[in-house]
Amino acid sequence: MTIITFTTDFGQSDYDAGVLAGVALGIAPQARIVPLTHDIPRHDVLAGALLLGRSAPYFPPGTVHVAVVDPGVGTKRRGLAAHLGTQFFVGPDNGLLTLLYHQAIEKGGSIEIVHLTQPRYWLPKVSAIFHGRDVFAPVAAHIANGVSLDELGTFIQDPVLLDIPQVQPFEGGVRGAVQHVDAFGNLATNIEPRHLSGPAAEARVRIAGREIHGILRAFGDALPGELVALFDSSGRLSVCVVNGSAAEVLGVGVGEKVELS
Amino acid sequence: MTIITFTTDFGQSDYDAGVLAGVALGIAPQARIVPLTHDIPRHDVLAGALLLGRSAPYFPPGTVHVAVVDPGVGTKRRGLAAHLGTQFFVGPDNGLLTLLYHQAIEKGGSIEIVHLTQPRYWLPKVSAIFHGRDVFAPVAAHIANGVSLDELGTFIQDPVLLDIPQVQPFEGGVRGAVQHVDAFGNLATNIEPRHLSGPAAEARVRIAGREIHGILRAFGDALPGELVALFDSSGRLSVCVVNGSAAEVLGVGVGEKVELS
Amino acid sequence: MTIITFTTDFGQSDYDAGVLAGVALGIAPQARIVPLTHDIPRHDVLAGALLLGRSAPYFPPGTVHVAVVDPGVGTKRRGLAAHLGTQFFVGPDNGLLTLLYHQAIEKGGSIEIVHLTQPRYWLPKVSAIFHGRDVFAPVAAHIANGVSLDELGTFIQDPVLLDIPQVQPFEGGVRGAVQHVDAFGNLATNIEPRHLSGPAAEARVRIAGREIHGILRAFGDALPGELVALFDSSGRLSVCVVNGSAAEVLGVGVGEKVELS
Repeated sequence: MTIITFTTDFGQSDYDAGVLAGVALGIAPQARIVPLTHDIPRHDVLAGALLLGRSAPYFPPGTVHVAVVDPGVGTKRRGLAAHLGTQFFVGPDNGLLTLLYHQAIEKGGSIEIVHLTQPRYWLPKVSAIFHGRDVFAPVAAHIANGVSLDELGTFIQDPVLLDIPQVQPFEGGVRGAVQHVDAFGNLATNIEPRHLSGPAAEARVRIAGREIHGILRAFGDALPGELVALFDSSGRLSVCVVNGSAAEVLGVGVGEKVELS
Repeated sequence: MTIITFTTDFGQSDYDAGVLAGVALGIAPQARIVPLTHDIPRHDVLAGALLLGRSAPYFPPGTVHVAVVDPGVGTKRRGLAAHLGTQFFVGPDNGLLTLLYHQAIEKGGSIEIVHLTQPRYWLPKVSAIFHGRDVFAPVAAHIANGVSLDELGTFIQDPVLLDIPQVQPFEGGVRGAVQHVDAFGNLATNIEPRHLSGPAAEARVRIAGREIHGILRAFGDALPGELVALFDSSGRLSVCVVNGSAAEVLGVGVGEKVELS
Repeated sequence: MTIITFTTDFGQSDYDAGVLAGVALGIAPQARIVPLTHDIPRHDVLAGALLLGRSAPYFPPGTVHVAVVDPGVGTKRRGLAAHLGTQFFVGPDNGLLTLLYHQAIEKGGSIEIVHLTQPRYWLPKVSAIFHGRDVFAPVAAHIANGVSLDELGTFIQDPVLLDIPQVQPFEGGVRGAVQHVDAFGNLATNIEPRHLSGPAAEARVRIAGREIHGILRAFGDALPGELVALFDSSGRLSVCVVNGSAAEVLGVGVGEKVELS
């Protein structure tokens, strides 16, 4: 039993999501299909890469993650399959694998990446428009069937990697940025617990001209409507309005500067 | 083969829904994942409890229903696992199991509920924010693997139960209320066929100052735009506009009083 | 292992989609559930038929497609099960099978259709409202279990078929129409590569008073904001705005005339 996940910007109102599953199950009937999301903002490769990076640690070894946020489909951009630590990645060479790649490096795991060049593992007819269906889903299913990377293409050392904004130190704290806004309007930053130098209750978080005193342990510790900061389920410092939307209240989004001191 | 269902208010645009499946399949690879919905209105515990109650009778015995509408996550609210009639429930102790509980009592089924106290059945690291991933999905997978309730925690007798509005009799009929508005704007009430004292064709339904004469057998029996009443697929008296939205036409929602006479 | 797909207009915020899966897995635990989409525009039988037609070729032989876009539920419209080429169809007799039917004829595949008349393959209690749950999902599961069509009902020769608009020739080209608008605002027409009489680069596409010169191979070949024409992943001539919405830019939708010359 191998899990194949899908992360795309196709939405769920058309046939794309279902057809990816049909193609994969036609080749690897024993595989289990898990949609991570089909609602990545259209063409937002960074959002796809971040979501994959947060999700992959919760999947068993050998899981194959197919990511299709692919504004360059039909151009000369390469298709990739990769073994990154315990997980596999299949998708376009546009940076979607960036966080899986860095996680594998951090954990000392193996990193093997191939440029997909062997059409015998694709559908017989490949459109210029939908490589998710015609190339990536079939390749993922063949990996689930035990086909090794070297059969799928030629090894490369230079995948496209996104330049993920890093946290910068300043006197008395660190400066980061909002990296993701979730469906509830919570603002997730790139600041993590290891950036905290003192007790959480005495920390100060500054964003959009507002200052938040202390980092909460959970939403339930504050009142509805209150602007709070806490480390979210992925361990990122998040700015939230209890039972409300911090994105709306502060009028900010991805890229907004955040200071922790 | 055991089915694990998920009912949450997470939406489908983030990583939460997929990660629940990944965690469960990592522990119980043979389980089958069925999302009931991830679109419960945020923090609407009653809506989650009602949806679970309507869904569970259509699942085979032994199905494990995980419900995560959990505004109190990270506070002292308990986590529960329960065997209610033929079905299992896993989730926070905030009333989400109310209808499954009452259904088990009505059918004379067994009722066993434990407070989850055994961290060895959870993920190694439990966040204060996302018990769905860290506690409830793992526990559900262990139940699917055959772990018994007494291994998961300590038995309790006092789960939180919601006070579901009841139908009240008055001279000549009964008075109920709208309990749910579906995506089409149909208004589902808590009135059931057993509350009907005469022929359906002669019944009168009063809501928002309007009176509907007769209860239809199906939408197809009326004209587009017509305001009608019928018993829906869950056996609840529903007020609908054919090919339209009764919620919009009448300008009412959950809690609106309805009389049947 | 048999795949059962679902195509409905139920949306995903209520219990319907999950309950279809629960009913099917209760009868055929070995089946694999693939939702094609639950977001067909409400009561849009043509949209459902088109989506099924585009999806089915990507599923393995023996797949059972359940379609429930069913404005006539509860009236005398028949319920059908059909073997069309390599695929099975289960749903109401309102034209949803039209494209699967024509595809089977084109490929010389078998066409067998039964009117569902044997309640022993349905749920014990059939509502007048939700035949997807009470009739079609159970029948699909029994087909997945190997029950043959002749056990399910009586053979018919006259299924309802939709009148799908055809491409018409005129001097110098063909005239077609927009058949589908996807989530990105791309306008898919009923014109296919075989209607092209010269080189793609010299073709002219006329729609809504605009003329597009040449048919592109892929989005990546044009600039953001540009109005372009290309053959989409299903081989249909599509009019698109790169990284934008042609439906919004041109202010047109399904039925709009398109000329290719």
